[in-house]
Amino acid sequence: MNQVIETILRHRSVRKFTEQPLSSEQIELIVKSAQAASTSSYIQAYSIIGITDLKKKQALAEVAGNQAYVAENGHFFIFCADLHRHQKIGEWEGSDVLPSIESTEKFMVALIDTALAAQNAVLAAESMGLGICYIGGIRNDLEKVASFLKTPKHVIPLFGIAVGYPAKETSQKPRLPLNHVYHENEYEQDESAFKAGIDQYNQSVQDYYNKRTNGKRSDTWSSQMGTMLEKKSRMYMKEFIEKKGLNLR
Amino acid sequence: MNQVIETILRHRSVRKFTEQPLSSEQIELIVKSAQAASTSSYIQAYSIIGITDLKKKQALAEVAGNQAYVAENGHFFIFCADLHRHQKIGEWEGSDVLPSIESTEKFMVALIDTALAAQNAVLAAESMGLGICYIGGIRNDLEKVASFLKTPKHVIPLFGIAVGYPAKETSQKPRLPLNHVYHENEYEQDESAFKAGIDQYNQSVQDYYNKRTNGKRSDTWSSQMGTMLEKKSRMYMKEFIEKKGLNLR
Repeated sequence: MNQVIETILRHRSVRKFTEQPLSSEQIELIVKSAQAASTSSYIQAYSIIGITDLKKKQALAEVAGNQAYVAENGHFFIFCADLHRHQKIGEWEGSDVLPSIESTEKFMVALIDTALAAQNAVLAAESMGLGICYIGGIRNDLEKVASFLKTPKHVIPLFGIAVGYPAKETSQKPRLPLNHVYHENEYEQDESAFKAGIDQYNQSVQDYYNKRTNGKRSDTWSSQMGTMLEKKSRMYMKEFIEKKGLNLR
Repeated sequence: MNQVIETILRHRSVRKFTEQPLSSEQIELIVKSAQAASTSSYIQAYSIIGITDLKKKQALAEVAGNQAYVAENGHFFIFCADLHRHQKIGEWEGSDVLPSIESTEKFMVALIDTALAAQNAVLAAESMGLGICYIGGIRNDLEKVASFLKTPKHVIPLFGIAVGYPAKETSQKPRLPLNHVYHENEYEQDESAFKAGIDQYNQSVQDYYNKRTNGKRSDTWSSQMGTMLEKKSRMYMKEFIEKKGLNLR
């Protein structure tokens, strides 16, 4: 196993950082790494906003449900799906690009592009001994986030990434069984095989919690998912995205 | 610079592979690497389908615009956004999860989760000396792809990844200037600075093509984007996604 795969498999989210900030060289290398990712038809449909202003970090932490590590870290990045520059280029080139930019297809392209870049950034950071945590919580209120960041139309802040030197080790939660996630030639349609995969996994998640909490906690993955997905969270999203001129047609 | 960042920065898409197939150990390590990525609230909203059936590969290559490397490679993966298992779990747990699963928010979560996993898979493969190419072209006709792969409702095949031993070296296309993609504290709203970033980049893209083609090709990034985005491509996507029970509310 090489250093890349070791770094990938060692990943765990870090939620407590020392006060040491990232150097500008580190930030630059992380952004360059993000940019090296594949991009659909060369579109590069993302922007990255680094937050250094402490008041802004605090405000973002509040949006994200008062998660302290959004404000207290070595650096905070926000990754945005971005088709603003393409809309501008359309104007400058005299090309009617809006119908395409407003399509669900291009919305998907922008999301995928942004996430590929982000995962490169994360692995670059982790390879330097830094820890990271993705912050989906900024999507609790994108109106606020967009006004903090002054993002124009056709730009959607998707998630933050808190980066810094780990102050506390965290553990790695077990993943779905490989043969449940990985299919060959076609999607496994057999419901009993499917259910067996989930049952096996529920057992390993229960074992994990039991062990970590000395028997105080023993929920399964299914029960977690059931509870989480019963909540209708962030239901404003569709309207917000459409107002920003994306996912419209 | 460490081995991880070197691997990330060395990336280029490979579009011609030798006939050597990946070993099952390689495939397993790539899938495990994918699964090690961060996942929003532990949701793990993706599945991966490996295509070994030659007829199926050929059919997928046709959908993707007759790209030979979709059929001829060491292994072909299809990464799918997947909320099917969550819908099933909802049934089993007696939780009303559909309103949440059908939301634009969860559609975004599934896309981001899938792309993070994919980029881990890509870097794991590249670290083994393999080359890769993302294949967005499968989205030319997802009705066909979904029927080839027998994917159920709430599953969207997003892209393929062709993997294999490189048979031909490719070059790395220049990326947008770092200071154009990376902002501090807020999105750069100054139009002249914004335009300067694009102008500078257009020049470097022109230089790149000029050099590679001995002056035969000198298009800019802006002109490429204008031409590409003038085409209304894959406009069926919104309806397809909605029919699959996602991005509805």
